[in-house]
Amino acid sequence: MSEWHEISGGVTAPRGYKAAGIAAGLKPSGAPDLALIVSDVEAIAAGVFTISQVTAACVDYCRQQLLSCHSARAILCNAGQANASTGNQGWLDALESAMILAQGLNISSESVLLASTGVIGQRIKMDAFKTGIPKLVEALSETGSDAAAKAIITTDLVTKSIALETTIHDRPVRIGGISKGSGMIHPNMATMLAFVTCDAAVSPALWQEMLSRAADKSFNAITVDGDTSTNDSLIALANGQSRTPAITEMGAEAKKLEAMLTAVCQHLAKAIARDGEGATCLIEVQVSGANNERAALQIAKTIAGSSLVKSAIFGRDPNWGRIAAAAGRAGVPFEQEELRIQLGDFLLMEKGQPLEFDRQAASIYLKENAAASSLPKDVVATDNSNDLNVDRNTVTQRIDDPVIIAVSVGNGKGEGKAWGCDLSYDYVKINAEYTT
Amino acid sequence: MSEWHEISGGVTAPRGYKAAGIAAGLKPSGAPDLALIVSDVEAIAAGVFTISQVTAACVDYCRQQLLSCHSARAILCNAGQANASTGNQGWLDALESAMILAQGLNISSESVLLASTGVIGQRIKMDAFKTGIPKLVEALSETGSDAAAKAIITTDLVTKSIALETTIHDRPVRIGGISKGSGMIHPNMATMLAFVTCDAAVSPALWQEMLSRAADKSFNAITVDGDTSTNDSLIALANGQSRTPAITEMGAEAKKLEAMLTAVCQHLAKAIARDGEGATCLIEVQVSGANNERAALQIAKTIAGSSLVKSAIFGRDPNWGRIAAAAGRAGVPFEQEELRIQLGDFLLMEKGQPLEFDRQAASIYLKENAAASSLPKDVVATDNSNDLNVDRNTVTQRIDDPVIIAVSVGNGKGEGKAWGCDLSYDYVKINAEYTT
Repeated sequence: MSEWHEISGGVTAPRGYKAAGIAAGLKPSGAPDLALIVSDVEAIAAGVFTISQVTAACVDYCRQQLLSCHSARAILCNAGQANASTGNQGWLDALESAMILAQGLNISSESVLLASTGVIGQRIKMDAFKTGIPKLVEALSETGSDAAAKAIITTDLVTKSIALETTIHDRPVRIGGISKGSGMIHPNMATMLAFVTCDAAVSPALWQEMLSRAADKSFNAITVDGDTSTNDSLIALANGQSRTPAITEMGAEAKKLEAMLTAVCQHLAKAIARDGEGATCLIEVQVSGANNERAALQIAKTIAGSSLVKSAIFGRDPNWGRIAAAAGRAGVPFEQEELRIQLGDFLLMEKGQPLEFDRQAASIYLKENAAASSLPKDVVATDNSNDLNVDRNTVTQRIDDPVIIAVSVGNGKGEGKAWGCDLSYDYVKINAEYTT
Repeated sequence: MSEWHEISGGVTAPRGYKAAGIAAGLKPSGAPDLALIVSDVEAIAAGVFTISQVTAACVDYCRQQLLSCHSARAILCNAGQANASTGNQGWLDALESAMILAQGLNISSESVLLASTGVIGQRIKMDAFKTGIPKLVEALSETGSDAAAKAIITTDLVTKSIALETTIHDRPVRIGGISKGSGMIHPNMATMLAFVTCDAAVSPALWQEMLSRAADKSFNAITVDGDTSTNDSLIALANGQSRTPAITEMGAEAKKLEAMLTAVCQHLAKAIARDGEGATCLIEVQVSGANNERAALQIAKTIAGSSLVKSAIFGRDPNWGRIAAAAGRAGVPFEQEELRIQLGDFLLMEKGQPLEFDRQAASIYLKENAAASSLPKDVVATDNSNDLNVDRNTVTQRIDDPVIIAVSVGNGKGEGKAWGCDLSYDYVKINAEYTT
């Protein structure tokens, strides 16, 4: 039994948060494009950002802010322009954005964190932005999470949101989150954004540690096409409004909180993987028996990221050989005689050698699990376009029954999971066919 | 001007080599499937093999042979069964294969090197193999390179072959090579095989060094889909029959020989990349200005391997943002203000910021270069199948006019090149649609 349960409310489920999302005219389509999350009080803030050498102004800005000050009141996100590869002017735009919002909220601009997603090489449309900010602040509400979730997506087919609740010292503690995924944005790249709110009280260093570890087991364990964006950002606030005692070291409460934070991040990450461009199903790769967690995760990620494995799953092909090959090239030493591969309930390989199995039944397993996790047909049919003219409704996305690939490489205690999606014709279509 | 020129003859162009290729009944299709390269005298032998933890019996066998003895007379290759994931029986089959060939050639079985390509998990069909060996030995000829080149391919659209000649101490020295590439082999993976012959006399350690460096600049610098096979092998023989003085240290002659060896390997590697599954063109990524060669190569490989870049090129889309993003995530530090991106003659980005350029003309550049390097239509149309029932004729493959992506990341002296191909619908089709 989990130590937590799911609740509604997304980022406004935890106490002391408001959110909003509006259409400010940044997206050419007129879809919602400006999102705001605000804590009633100064919150401990932590962040994990893209490892790319090419970074958007908002990423540079957040890194600098969090280095000097581990707290924030607001997260502001614009969709439409990435404000990456925009040079010094992009940096000045970021500073001005923070200042304008700070004035609107009547807080210090040091309490503002920024995120952007959209077209790389384009500055934020500052006129529309300035006009939008008062409306955005006006729209803030304790039920504003869905509006914010809609305003941060670009070519995502669905919005992504979750909230969980547990009990610490007999009081409810909540963590909520929203994310956007890997819809390709003309003319550039997939951007992953996730914002998490929590009402526990945690020390800054511990909160950052927890978030970094959670990111490694979630956002850093998903792959759509192996590409990393200039704007990838995960920001998490903890505002203490649950009125529970401050957590300052890794005791039982801290572990409980970190486990729930990890679960929130994993839900948001899996939702991104499932909504990968052109994907027809979510794939979960479980690796065990490695020498350590890091090695297991490395193998899991390599399998989840293999174009050959991904296209086999799209073809509903129980192709153990490609899984074995991907495991073998992960850069992690293991004895091939120890390799064991399972697809759902079908044992495909043991002791490094292929087994006889019911190929047809295994293929049916793939078909059925893909169908179980498929999106409503009308969403896919009408919205699988590659522009910014999208305004998704919140539709239910099933991520509970992924295709499961379980691999064991020995007797070690290292375990790890990674998530990905299959590689379909539509991936190529979405990414090849929009300028010519 | 190059210090060498191209000649005909493939692996039998250098003095003292014979080759053969026959249909022995290993492939269900009846296409040629057994290839042999023999040196008249014991030759210095070097090899580079897959880095996968899951290795075929032939790879284990060659590694062991080359560890104990740096010479060989024969390279035997079967196509049809990979003899990987076949356990101890596969190992015994490999030993027996070498012994049978050694008897047929009347040489020591220690002088035999082995390579296999085909279906993983399947043993070599030993009965057909045994019947085939005498015919294969009988077919050996000084003009047998093309027959061998045909017998090692599986789903390749074309055979790959090259021979170059230079002069050392006023005598001609030749290096020839054949390779097979990344056609997907049911039910598993792409296998890269390359066999190189040379008639210079080189010391074993130096020959291995040269081959390893050449491999890093060629076979290790190409990517089709990032997957690595259990059977990848590069084997090179140097038999001294040019009657030139033995090269034992890195002087001028050694450098000349290594440069030509590298050119042979690069030709064979580029031919593999161009023939990547579903590919419509060859892409060359040139990186300069990095701190060192290794860093440059790392960036080049990351760009060439990016699914987003590959699908943009398939769409004939001059998408600088995806190139910048791939460069940024290569794991090599650089200042984004130093980033410069050129596509053919079109400067797309400078000092980290996008430039105005003629998008339509750049797209035409992509179209024209793809057309220049395209295969004859009938080859693609009739042979783009995904089984082993293929018997390709030697058709001309143009690899001289690739799509060129040139990236500079600073003022360092590190330069590197990598090659890849675009990502098309056919890649997904070939890899998804054959079992269901």
